[in-house]
Amino acid sequence: MTPFASLFVPAELQAAVSGRSWLVAMLDAERALANAGALAGVIPAHEASAIAAACAVDGYDWEQLLQEGRRVGNPAEPLVQALVARVGEETARWAHLGATSQDIMDTAAMLVARRALGLVLDELSRVTHACATLARSYRDTPMAGRTLLQQAVPTTFGLKAAGWLVAVLDARARLAQLREGGLAAQLGGAVGTLAALGEHGPEIARLYARELDLAEATLPWHTNRVRIAELGAALDIAAGVLAKIGLDLALLAQTEVAEVREGGEGGGSSAMPQKRNAVGAVSTRACAELERAYASVLTGALVQEHERAAGAWQAEWEALSGALAYAGGAAAALAGALEGLEVDEARMRANLDITGGQVVAERLALLLAERLGRTAARALVRDASLRASETGRSLAEELAGLDTGLTSEEVEAALEPTTYLGSAGALVDRALARYDAEREDEE
Amino acid sequence: MTPFASLFVPAELQAAVSGRSWLVAMLDAERALANAGALAGVIPAHEASAIAAACAVDGYDWEQLLQEGRRVGNPAEPLVQALVARVGEETARWAHLGATSQDIMDTAAMLVARRALGLVLDELSRVTHACATLARSYRDTPMAGRTLLQQAVPTTFGLKAAGWLVAVLDARARLAQLREGGLAAQLGGAVGTLAALGEHGPEIARLYARELDLAEATLPWHTNRVRIAELGAALDIAAGVLAKIGLDLALLAQTEVAEVREGGEGGGSSAMPQKRNAVGAVSTRACAELERAYASVLTGALVQEHERAAGAWQAEWEALSGALAYAGGAAAALAGALEGLEVDEARMRANLDITGGQVVAERLALLLAERLGRTAARALVRDASLRASETGRSLAEELAGLDTGLTSEEVEAALEPTTYLGSAGALVDRALARYDAEREDEE
Amino acid sequence: MTPFASLFVPAELQAAVSGRSWLVAMLDAERALANAGALAGVIPAHEASAIAAACAVDGYDWEQLLQEGRRVGNPAEPLVQALVARVGEETARWAHLGATSQDIMDTAAMLVARRALGLVLDELSRVTHACATLARSYRDTPMAGRTLLQQAVPTTFGLKAAGWLVAVLDARARLAQLREGGLAAQLGGAVGTLAALGEHGPEIARLYARELDLAEATLPWHTNRVRIAELGAALDIAAGVLAKIGLDLALLAQTEVAEVREGGEGGGSSAMPQKRNAVGAVSTRACAELERAYASVLTGALVQEHERAAGAWQAEWEALSGALAYAGGAAAALAGALEGLEVDEARMRANLDITGGQVVAERLALLLAERLGRTAARALVRDASLRASETGRSLAEELAGLDTGLTSEEVEAALEPTTYLGSAGALVDRALARYDAEREDEE
Amino acid sequence: MTPFASLFVPAELQAAVSGRSWLVAMLDAERALANAGALAGVIPAHEASAIAAACAVDGYDWEQLLQEGRRVGNPAEPLVQALVARVGEETARWAHLGATSQDIMDTAAMLVARRALGLVLDELSRVTHACATLARSYRDTPMAGRTLLQQAVPTTFGLKAAGWLVAVLDARARLAQLREGGLAAQLGGAVGTLAALGEHGPEIARLYARELDLAEATLPWHTNRVRIAELGAALDIAAGVLAKIGLDLALLAQTEVAEVREGGEGGGSSAMPQKRNAVGAVSTRACAELERAYASVLTGALVQEHERAAGAWQAEWEALSGALAYAGGAAAALAGALEGLEVDEARMRANLDITGGQVVAERLALLLAERLGRTAARALVRDASLRASETGRSLAEELAGLDTGLTSEEVEAALEPTTYLGSAGALVDRALARYDAEREDEE
Repeated sequence: MTPFASLFVPAELQAAVSGRSWLVAMLDAERALANAGALAGVIPAHEASAIAAACAVDGYDWEQLLQEGRRVGNPAEPLVQALVARVGEETARWAHLGATSQDIMDTAAMLVARRALGLVLDELSRVTHACATLARSYRDTPMAGRTLLQQAVPTTFGLKAAGWLVAVLDARARLAQLREGGLAAQLGGAVGTLAALGEHGPEIARLYARELDLAEATLPWHTNRVRIAELGAALDIAAGVLAKIGLDLALLAQTEVAEVREGGEGGGSSAMPQKRNAVGAVSTRACAELERAYASVLTGALVQEHERAAGAWQAEWEALSGALAYAGGAAAALAGALEGLEVDEARMRANLDITGGQVVAERLALLLAERLGRTAARALVRDASLRASETGRSLAEELAGLDTGLTSEEVEAALEPTTYLGSAGALVDRALARYDAEREDEE
Repeated sequence: MTPFASLFVPAELQAAVSGRSWLVAMLDAERALANAGALAGVIPAHEASAIAAACAVDGYDWEQLLQEGRRVGNPAEPLVQALVARVGEETARWAHLGATSQDIMDTAAMLVARRALGLVLDELSRVTHACATLARSYRDTPMAGRTLLQQAVPTTFGLKAAGWLVAVLDARARLAQLREGGLAAQLGGAVGTLAALGEHGPEIARLYARELDLAEATLPWHTNRVRIAELGAALDIAAGVLAKIGLDLALLAQTEVAEVREGGEGGGSSAMPQKRNAVGAVSTRACAELERAYASVLTGALVQEHERAAGAWQAEWEALSGALAYAGGAAAALAGALEGLEVDEARMRANLDITGGQVVAERLALLLAERLGRTAARALVRDASLRASETGRSLAEELAGLDTGLTSEEVEAALEPTTYLGSAGALVDRALARYDAEREDEE
Repeated sequence: MTPFASLFVPAELQAAVSGRSWLVAMLDAERALANAGALAGVIPAHEASAIAAACAVDGYDWEQLLQEGRRVGNPAEPLVQALVARVGEETARWAHLGATSQDIMDTAAMLVARRALGLVLDELSRVTHACATLARSYRDTPMAGRTLLQQAVPTTFGLKAAGWLVAVLDARARLAQLREGGLAAQLGGAVGTLAALGEHGPEIARLYARELDLAEATLPWHTNRVRIAELGAALDIAAGVLAKIGLDLALLAQTEVAEVREGGEGGGSSAMPQKRNAVGAVSTRACAELERAYASVLTGALVQEHERAAGAWQAEWEALSGALAYAGGAAAALAGALEGLEVDEARMRANLDITGGQVVAERLALLLAERLGRTAARALVRDASLRASETGRSLAEELAGLDTGLTSEEVEAALEPTTYLGSAGALVDRALARYDAEREDEE
Repeated sequence: MTPFASLFVPAELQAAVSGRSWLVAMLDAERALANAGALAGVIPAHEASAIAAACAVDGYDWEQLLQEGRRVGNPAEPLVQALVARVGEETARWAHLGATSQDIMDTAAMLVARRALGLVLDELSRVTHACATLARSYRDTPMAGRTLLQQAVPTTFGLKAAGWLVAVLDARARLAQLREGGLAAQLGGAVGTLAALGEHGPEIARLYARELDLAEATLPWHTNRVRIAELGAALDIAAGVLAKIGLDLALLAQTEVAEVREGGEGGGSSAMPQKRNAVGAVSTRACAELERAYASVLTGALVQEHERAAGAWQAEWEALSGALAYAGGAAAALAGALEGLEVDEARMRANLDITGGQVVAERLALLLAERLGRTAARALVRDASLRASETGRSLAEELAGLDTGLTSEEVEAALEPTTYLGSAGALVDRALARYDAEREDEE
């Protein structure tokens, strides 16, 4: 299964969403439940201690729990059996007290998510840092802005990188917010009434959440999956933002564009010795495709029957693991690509010239509009541009003989790409200021 | 096209996302742009006034703009032509100044979203109000809690409704938050540098946003679609929550369960005269399926090329309209179903009895565990339950001859469903307290 | 990663889509390429033999290939390096001759798919067999037909099972067809021109496909992913059909319906000792949710750039593995549930009576229409039904005093559910005849 | 609603999936039912004639039917009421005889699909014709093959177009197959037993299908949605294939690549007078995004409860309309782009030269491997390529001083791109032969 994870997902992140990680988290939940019971005075302290001690991961066998779990549809029930067997019959009646399998699975999901999200956020920080560095370094480097994949008017590489930065900041902020406040303990008992805990239910639920350092939800959320769906959506959005940047990189690295290149030794081909593919960008995009799929399970799992779902819930575990892993995989791959990015400023400049001035046609049209009116000015520039494209001459040459009312020096100045950058610099500064401010807040 | 909208979407909401609504919003954007230019001293005041006057919707023909828009891939370009034609050549050079088609389309999208979201939020408020009313009215009404579609242990209808309430509050809060702060004006010019506005770019962008009462983004967001994706995700999540409630209603309304029934005259069938289908619930679920599809376009549209996308952006318009419409359709249908819901408390009570006490087996097992230990107690109760299911006798009868250490009165008391409701009441109160607090905040 | 696979996917199927399975398939492709080259007279026979011998799987390390593959974005390139190292420099120039990494990966994907599809089809055959057996055994067993989750008019359990049967036959036929003719070898070289094979390209491609017993495509299909998408779609449809049956089972197993029950020892709960959940049905539905996600990657991967995709292709490998695994998981879980299904005919009969005749209201309305006309007849029956629902009396009782023109015996006969089964039996026979015919064709 | 349809979808196709089209189809179903009843001797001939006459579309009001349909969740029930009102009470009892609303809706869906699919197939034929013409015209035109968005080795524009052709042929064949045999009449009555038709059920169902020239399904397929899902999947795959071609066009039309350009007057911009965007390609991709969403509703709608779904079915109508419309929209836009495509062969040739020979590095490495061995040869070429990229010199220049064992003439010959086209021509011929053969079959 998932035979290709190691190709895309950092080892630490694979570990964070592994079976062992889930097992540890499930045991953490059982331990916290025992401790909360003891704190509430419901479970004798020494019994809670015995249970807590039995929640050490060694000795439990994940694959075996899964095998046994097929019978009931989840691995929590066999885990409880194993825990009971370990603590002995005397203590057993205090184990898993008041909880249902879903309490343990959902709480474990939150713990797994917290751990993995930490790594995902770290990778995203690498990406924002790299974007910020590029934005700062190339604040004033002119390049062609491109719309619908065609040169439009000039921009700067700094502004392009700033645009990436802001998008990742937007997406990352939501993930950080969900990690901070959106991960809640689950404790409701069989159907969410906490009945098996008698009058102590709410207090134990509170203590249980505190033990685990998770939020306490308004109500048990066995079939209110908004927090799961929001997590899925936020991971999906983050991956989508990363894929956008990856796509831009791949486009900029095209042989015919050649404005950036991923550094390092990578990008070889089994057939073509000269290839230096944009492997980081490609991997980012591949991860984002998988991310989208896993996240769709999480956002699609909102529709759950009554007090526990007959299928939609059980699909979440695999999907959550995958969504966390591939969001991190996308971020790691992109961070690597951006950190080692080789930027060819000369080529950016050269590409700005290949349209023979057409890339600044907008400015010329605005200028001419003052004298000729908007419609006539645009028609004149459009016609000249089309002719230029056909003849291969520059736009200035095509305009030379026409009654534009401008001197050839004025035309030439108007068609100089590097002086038509508008507020690019100021906008870069604004993005960097936000980045710096948010970083300070973090620290 | 969309031949079935009227079946599911309230007329007012259909209007809010209609072509005319988009047209009005696009003209609002053009007007705001002229006004902002005037305020910044870039456009002469009387020219701005002339443009603003020409932005009255009457006289523009949406279908014709679409026809002409096929040539360029969007309706904003022909709209600018029409606007230019209307104001005359003198004024024309001040119209659409500094903007690109996407500025107008994206800003219009935000205005359309604001208007439609208002209606969606209203419908969601109807839903929360109805849920709160049900939770309050049936706070202590026992019913079977059901897991994996089988009776598990008792709960209350109040807690069930409170669970619905909290889920909708969660989902609605996010939508309200996005409507409040997540809708931003778009003004970047051709590639986001604001170049055509010279040094006045940022100021005009600020004034433009203020004119429209929209947020100002850190940067132009032509290809940073996080806000669009977040809107799509939040609408999707809201619809999913509504579908969950619709599913619960449909399940509770089953002939064999019959605990609720949608009121009113609806639910007939062309073949079966006796049918009283849960049409509101069914419509909610149908809307949610369509919602999911439209929203997926929005979350999938993050991956956009360079400074303007070659396809993904152009798909957003239809998808945004649909996502807003069907989220509102789902909410309206569900609100109707909940507001008129007929709740059969007697049937809920009766259904609690059909397992002959098995629905409280958990309590019995806990009680016996004190004396027999966890494992033995569960085995005893499980065996008795299985026998009871086979013989058709009650669990108490099956236990009668066994050495449980309990008197028959104790067994009977343990197997009384209505006294095993745990903290259901307290949890309902907590949910209602949150509802009341959030409503006060709103007001 | 995929920490939960063993919960849902049979071990043999996990093996079929494992890293080792992919590795073996990639080596099979390299071996076939060498053999084809030898057969075409391009590669010396002894060199081909040496390469073929080096394609034994032992000694290759999948995880290491993935680690090295990160650099280039796929594991085929490092595999070629490893193969080259194994055969030695002399032989190396004949290894991987004329192929590109994608040739090996795509061909391996086809081989993995063929192996795994075989298992999936076997599981689906178990499902069709079980459905056919149920249809035959319960051909004439009356039960309530249910529309919009409410009792409508009677049907038979045989017809219900026949409906399941036909849907699975439909879905399975497509998968079998794709396994038979839709799996094609991939050999195109770097960009699909077969240039490195000189004039021998087409012949070697033909021999290569023959060696692997795969179809030969019209053209290399590096970025024509129709066959991958069709496979994904067919797996998705199969899983959807299985989920529909799983849903029906879960609904029929509801405590209040109780018409079927999954046999065996399964279905326990960690909290509730009496529970006998429909675990097979639940697992089927969980698998189908995951299936849908994996399949969506495959159908979404059609949009690939030029001669090799920069991301979409690389996402296919994991998704194909998952789609095959979870389709099989869904089928295996459902087969188990259906094979052990306990059908409660008495309960089906009893449930037909709980509406007091309303479940046959359609027949009564048709009968009355002969005398009263359609509209009046329907109104009369509808009113009586509503009154009956309110009073709790039978429909016959409500009709007793009315001028229907029917004797009470006629009314009673009309309201007998078991005589209003229409062509159910004939339809069951038709489905079974198709099943038998298709099985014969297979054999 | 769908305020943007006219931007993307041909008017005829919009009409084919419009409310009026659905209404006509529903009336066609009612008429066929009456006729079938008459042919079977169940309905008096003059009554059937009266009903058939009342099935003329004029006088029915779609929007009003939808309004009334909200009450019951579909427009078929109010249509039956309207039909009944039109024919009068005498005749009414023969109208809609034996059918349920879903019979009419599903049959109408098939009729709408047949009509719209005809148009979609026509547009796809335009695409295949255009691809074939390009493949034929540019059979031997060398251009850069590109993998991972970088120049790899040479190919021909003919082979590229042939690749598009084959993919569209593959996708179109499936759609044609489904239109031919996959559209089946639906007649089952309330729950699929045909009970209201007594013993005549199967015969009337057969005649009904014959009247409509639709296939007869093995069983009523109220909740066996395989044919709907297969249609959705096939439309999705067709759109995906079209989007791939659209993407290739947009990439080839990039300013820096400039190998193709969409002809005609289109592609202007509201800001940039020089722009000639690839609007057809962009529209194709936008349509494909929407297609994917609509199709996902259809493939997701397999999971339907019992004998009629409570939500999933009702979502199909809008989705089917949209899926048909946008598949056709994508095909129409792409057909236009391809038919008017301006191909710049000189630019293709020029782009082949920009790597200074590296685009043929594979051939050189193969040549050198004969003497140096595979590994050394590849290392030598790779190193030389990297140096060439840094120095800006040609690969031949970098190789000049090295001991390659080749003369400079041999190196030069090896690095001539236009002689390294492998079997491109033969492959084009093979694709065209298939195209011609399939066209003949059609005629």
